[in-house]
Amino acid sequence: MPRGIFVSFEGSEGCGKSTQIRLLADRLKALGHQVILTREPGGTEIGEQLRHLLQFSKAGHAMASETELLLFAASRAQLVREVIAPALEAGAIVLADRFLDSTTVYQGVARKLDPAEVAAINRFAVGDTLPDITFVFDLDLAIARERMRHRPAPAGAPDRMESQPAAFFEAVRAGYLALARENTTRVRLLDAAGTVEDLSNRIWQELAPRLSPLPVTK
Amino acid sequence: MPRGIFVSFEGSEGCGKSTQIRLLADRLKALGHQVILTREPGGTEIGEQLRHLLQFSKAGHAMASETELLLFAASRAQLVREVIAPALEAGAIVLADRFLDSTTVYQGVARKLDPAEVAAINRFAVGDTLPDITFVFDLDLAIARERMRHRPAPAGAPDRMESQPAAFFEAVRAGYLALARENTTRVRLLDAAGTVEDLSNRIWQELAPRLSPLPVTK
Repeated sequence: MPRGIFVSFEGSEGCGKSTQIRLLADRLKALGHQVILTREPGGTEIGEQLRHLLQFSKAGHAMASETELLLFAASRAQLVREVIAPALEAGAIVLADRFLDSTTVYQGVARKLDPAEVAAINRFAVGDTLPDITFVFDLDLAIARERMRHRPAPAGAPDRMESQPAAFFEAVRAGYLALARENTTRVRLLDAAGTVEDLSNRIWQELAPRLSPLPVTK
Repeated sequence: MPRGIFVSFEGSEGCGKSTQIRLLADRLKALGHQVILTREPGGTEIGEQLRHLLQFSKAGHAMASETELLLFAASRAQLVREVIAPALEAGAIVLADRFLDSTTVYQGVARKLDPAEVAAINRFAVGDTLPDITFVFDLDLAIARERMRHRPAPAGAPDRMESQPAAFFEAVRAGYLALARENTTRVRLLDAAGTVEDLSNRIWQELAPRLSPLPVTK
């Protein structure tokens, strides 16, 4: 059994990555591929408890940046060992809605924690389970905000991250652009202002050549 | 206001450190010192949720060692910023039932995670808030087990850590002995097989010369 493919999707809130993940998963499944979807924080029993603690608890509002980073890393460490690594071993295609680049950008760049320390904790959390390809969705802040305004509640209710000021999201966008520049082998930068079809085609062009031929069944 | 004193207490379960912390706290308070007690994991709203997750949740039984370490570090990062650093700033004496040495020994030595990575995460979690003095309680494993058997429930009910095999606790003991050898300025090794009074006197001898003269009140 050849190892599966690990694809991560990154970008600011409202950039359209969830839509693209859903479309891609449907297309892959229709072709007979095994697809595993993950989200961060969460995706395991432990991770979902941490997601709740990070996003919605009253306590979360007084959370130190260092605590926040360590909880994201803990959720990811568990997700890698319980879900992602076994799925790749079994030949599945893993589509991850956020992975370690989110920590690099949100905690390292936007919250200004030491990038070397953030990188060390990222490495400890994921070991050698790194994405084969990462799609970074780049979108003008005003457009992203406008899209988020039209989301239905409760998805549209601002959580702890979404209630940050505009400067925070500008820093996040700049962080993702830097990430794309510095990781040209792994990272593909996508203009998320395009149509859903354009984006979907662009993603498919990158992914299709990497797919293993499926075994003929029935 | 001079900075307070940060004292941590380390050792295997059943070594008697909780008793000594209580006695020391009472003695210091009777003299008029401000005393803050902390425990790990826990001590903040976020930390207590993590304590629950680490010790008692069903999910905890399938927890990866890396996840465990990151959750201990997250709890400690919050405790330092929310409780310990402000208390020291206000001149209090902080008595910590476990601190970063527990992670060095339990996760680094006993669970065999990379000591350099463990040290890097410890530093990230606590910053420059390090104990002024650390008492390591050393006790023969058989005596510690016997003491734990006589604890009243629910304190005596084995939690996730206490249900580890004997080899784990032998590794913990060896880890603490190595820590004491390598940090002779900060760490004091105590023979925990002595009487409660002997131990209490030994701790007081170390601590008394460090106490600030109290302001005369009333």
